[in-house]
Amino acid sequence: MAENESKGRKILVAVDEGEESMYALSWCLGNISIQNSKDTIVLLDAKPPLAVYSGLDGTAGMGVHLFSSDIMLTMESYRNAVAQGVMQKAKNLCRQHGDIKVETMIENGDARDVICGAAEKLGVDMVVMGSHGYGLIKRAFLGSVSNHCAQNVKCPVLIVKRPKSTAENK
Amino acid sequence: MAENESKGRKILVAVDEGEESMYALSWCLGNISIQNSKDTIVLLDAKPPLAVYSGLDGTAGMGVHLFSSDIMLTMESYRNAVAQGVMQKAKNLCRQHGDIKVETMIENGDARDVICGAAEKLGVDMVVMGSHGYGLIKRAFLGSVSNHCAQNVKCPVLIVKRPKSTAENK
Repeated sequence: MAENESKGRKILVAVDEGEESMYALSWCLGNISIQNSKDTIVLLDAKPPLAVYSGLDGTAGMGVHLFSSDIMLTMESYRNAVAQGVMQKAKNLCRQHGDIKVETMIENGDARDVICGAAEKLGVDMVVMGSHGYGLIKRAFLGSVSNHCAQNVKCPVLIVKRPKSTAENK
Repeated sequence: MAENESKGRKILVAVDEGEESMYALSWCLGNISIQNSKDTIVLLDAKPPLAVYSGLDGTAGMGVHLFSSDIMLTMESYRNAVAQGVMQKAKNLCRQHGDIKVETMIENGDARDVICGAAEKLGVDMVVMGSHGYGLIKRAFLGSVSNHCAQNVKCPVLIVKRPKSTAENK
């Protein structure tokens, strides 16, 4: 048994509605976290700020003022439903891999800040995440989430890419 | 046992003369690669192009022309000695962690190209590396090695930072 497994590690896995983060979680469960070990998997989903939904057309910063309160409530409820769905899917994946302790966190904010903040606050031993960012245009301005976290999180960061063959089959 | 351990994984660990890469290797051995498993650790050291030694003063591209052949031979022999020392240190670390299959590779070239090329050529299951780049000034121009590899290597990439407390003690 590896030296740190005896006391149990805390592994933060960033999940979202994309298939890549679920692949990263699966890879982690199959390759890093050992069945029936004392490890704890902390599943973290960052709900993006509402302004993100208004796109990158120059109005993003004022996005929260552009919609009526009804629309805002609908969007918030949609975000919550998406986050709950993501967590359920991720927990099911963990369950398939045996008796692993799982904790869940859903936080509001930019994924980069949320992941770095949670890693620091929880003092995790490792962060696992997919490699995707915001898509091509926003990445050009903001950089990828995984690059940011790899640079700013103090503990080891595992960046998992979804293999092309898997991506093409789904 | 995790699903991929039964057939044995190939884990590429980038090492160099810095303490951070040795810390990354140790972390990998303690947390990822399991003692007595069928995993193979491939230790990879990239010997930087000679031009790198001439610095970033605008003459870097012509660095190889600036020195006599005697000096070039001395520098080459120094680079080889450094690489051999790095490999020996890394192999000793592996030996301390049990009966692990270890292979070594020393390649000439920029670390970014060497690591991405080797990962692709060997079809490894995972790349492990320290988080450092070229230092502040060169990183501003060239980007960090780990960011480049995380973006370009197809398999999962684990980026390990040396904790500050450890760094301060050495």
